[in-house]
Amino acid sequence: MDLHENVAGLAALLGTWRGNGHGSYPTITDFDYTDEWVFSHSGKPFIGFVQRTKSPTGAPMHTESGYLRGLADGTVEIVAALPTGHTELGTGTVATDEHALVLTTRAEVVSTPAAKPVQQISRVFRVEGDVLTLELAMAAVGVPSTPHLTSRLVRVSS
Amino acid sequence: MDLHENVAGLAALLGTWRGNGHGSYPTITDFDYTDEWVFSHSGKPFIGFVQRTKSPTGAPMHTESGYLRGLADGTVEIVAALPTGHTELGTGTVATDEHALVLTTRAEVVSTPAAKPVQQISRVFRVEGDVLTLELAMAAVGVPSTPHLTSRLVRVSS
Repeated sequence: MDLHENVAGLAALLGTWRGNGHGSYPTITDFDYTDEWVFSHSGKPFIGFVQRTKSPTGAPMHTESGYLRGLADGTVEIVAALPTGHTELGTGTVATDEHALVLTTRAEVVSTPAAKPVQQISRVFRVEGDVLTLELAMAAVGVPSTPHLTSRLVRVSS
Repeated sequence: MDLHENVAGLAALLGTWRGNGHGSYPTITDFDYTDEWVFSHSGKPFIGFVQRTKSPTGAPMHTESGYLRGLADGTVEIVAALPTGHTELGTGTVATDEHALVLTTRAEVVSTPAAKPVQQISRVFRVEGDVLTLELAMAAVGVPSTPHLTSRLVRVSS
């Protein structure tokens, strides 16, 4: 199945990635986790993703899933659902140089009535060869946008 | 992995389901599709789902993914992401009798700037033995909530 031209610029993301991450936020205790991301496509103008994190002892922690939509003008939109009761909708930009692909997204978050209030999630996905580094900043529970998660993954299958 | 007590009432949904569906809406031509849903859990208080539909000739059509969150008070919240540029957040109720589990959800939809405007999605998931019937009504593009999709699936694995 050929990758749709609208997401051709994101081809370097495709595959399964695993690695380690570290989380912090002003309102919580720092924590470590293992991180897995799977990016896949079906020939349509989007790339689907599923993330799963586990504690260092292997217990399931967070998961989320969503899509990177490639528009004809070269921009990207992100939509995601989080089982914490949040959805993420935003726009992204793709930058490439000879070494790396960098996708930056900034999204508004909508929360269900029972969820903790989260307002905004900003992400940086950087692919350099078979290494993917992720950064996530979050505005939540009254705290303005602040770094929350960083992880470094390696490609385990394409 | 034991199912979390908050989603124990949704246990009958777990597994992989396949079947056929039919779509209609006042603004489009009717269409048929094959429908697949996978409901899974990790021991946490939610059930994840992924849907994939194909045309009768096997071409990928729609997909979406999300979570059914079980709250301690017995209610359910739904969050989902759709690669059409929409997210869905809402609440649900579970009804059971000796024959069937019926989960009804009603969700507000948020659309990305480039997406068609959708306002609301209401769903009925009905499990009776190894048969899952789905109904979806949608308020979109100026049309009030109107039946859009119906499908009937059978359980292919649990």
